[in-house]
Amino acid sequence: MLSKDPNYHNTFSIDNVIFGFDEGDLKILLIERAEEAFIGQMALPGNLVLEDEDLDHGAARILFELTGLQNAHLEQLYTFGDVNRHPLGRVITVAYYSLIRIKSDDLKPRISFAKRASWVSVSKIPKLAFDHNRILEIALERLRGQLRYRPVGFELLPEKFTLSQLQGLYESILQIAIDTRNFRKKIIGFDFLVELGEKQKEVSHRAAKLYRFDKKRYQSLVKLGFNFEL
Amino acid sequence: MLSKDPNYHNTFSIDNVIFGFDEGDLKILLIERAEEAFIGQMALPGNLVLEDEDLDHGAARILFELTGLQNAHLEQLYTFGDVNRHPLGRVITVAYYSLIRIKSDDLKPRISFAKRASWVSVSKIPKLAFDHNRILEIALERLRGQLRYRPVGFELLPEKFTLSQLQGLYESILQIAIDTRNFRKKIIGFDFLVELGEKQKEVSHRAAKLYRFDKKRYQSLVKLGFNFEL
Repeated sequence: MLSKDPNYHNTFSIDNVIFGFDEGDLKILLIERAEEAFIGQMALPGNLVLEDEDLDHGAARILFELTGLQNAHLEQLYTFGDVNRHPLGRVITVAYYSLIRIKSDDLKPRISFAKRASWVSVSKIPKLAFDHNRILEIALERLRGQLRYRPVGFELLPEKFTLSQLQGLYESILQIAIDTRNFRKKIIGFDFLVELGEKQKEVSHRAAKLYRFDKKRYQSLVKLGFNFEL
Repeated sequence: MLSKDPNYHNTFSIDNVIFGFDEGDLKILLIERAEEAFIGQMALPGNLVLEDEDLDHGAARILFELTGLQNAHLEQLYTFGDVNRHPLGRVITVAYYSLIRIKSDDLKPRISFAKRASWVSVSKIPKLAFDHNRILEIALERLRGQLRYRPVGFELLPEKFTLSQLQGLYESILQIAIDTRNFRKKIIGFDFLVELGEKQKEVSHRAAKLYRFDKKRYQSLVKLGFNFEL
């Protein structure tokens, strides 16, 4: 046992901010809480940390239980521990965030802590349980900061995408209008996109060229010291 | 009380990585532990979180108790929670980091958890208690990453400094040799240094010009979207 144990009640949890991108819209995965506190209210998916799991494993477990996804990239975001953030006791929560490709069959919650889960546009987030609106705000800041320096957005797009879709992703996340010509020149100049020689199918407008992101090429460019600031 | 309380013993702590810069050398503040576990071993200054303090306040308290410094900039670094990181139980620790100006009278520990405190060169760090070598490694990565994009180093220098001292700081932290001419051109071009019209005193070599960092000017340049990548 610890020699200097705080004699107040405390515990720790993990909360995941899971971003997806769908129909030109940045979304996050929210649950409806099945437990006190805030029962019935929308919240970030989260849970107490189990005795035998490291923090990274806990975050991966919660994502798996919600979406069935394994091996998704999860990154620690920030730890929130204000004295009164949880109405039932002192709970410090370690927030993680993840970018995933939304698929229609993603959501099969096998979890006790959520009644249901759904993707919600970040422009339509309701009042969430605990300090979860604040956690989401910090995650959005991190995502926007990273997007300016690293091509993180590709984890949100389908494997094959058009340059318009890519530009729409940047515009939606950064909430700015981007000049199309400059954007295309710059993003193609980065030299990590592969033109697939295919075009979109079943679209009402003129079909556009499809590209994919060459992650290995990107990683070798990073090692060479290239800078990808947009 | 929490409705779903984990029935294993757990608690949380804060550990501070406090960087200083002295005689051309990047240093961190280490303590000799006065308590179990790892009694007598060198460690990052840290303590359990008190019942009525937020995490940021806890980090500031620990820094104050060690150095007497108030209002120093402390930034949350990362949270470490591997199952076996603490031999006496499950302890998740939230690490903070800070850059301060070393003064000779900084160290008057008024604390129970440390026998003594001292500044140690990052090139001569011994085996530390717990996972503190790993925490320091992550803090160094963060510091190096930030130094490339933001002029964080000024918090480590005296208020008046020479361009040689500034270059020495970058070289010491980034562990690279920097071309003097390019460095001066670039750093002066950033337009956030003020030449004081004074020179060094009591030096054996030719006295160099002194500068100060204009933080307000820097902040207004950041708002205008300027980039300070070295």
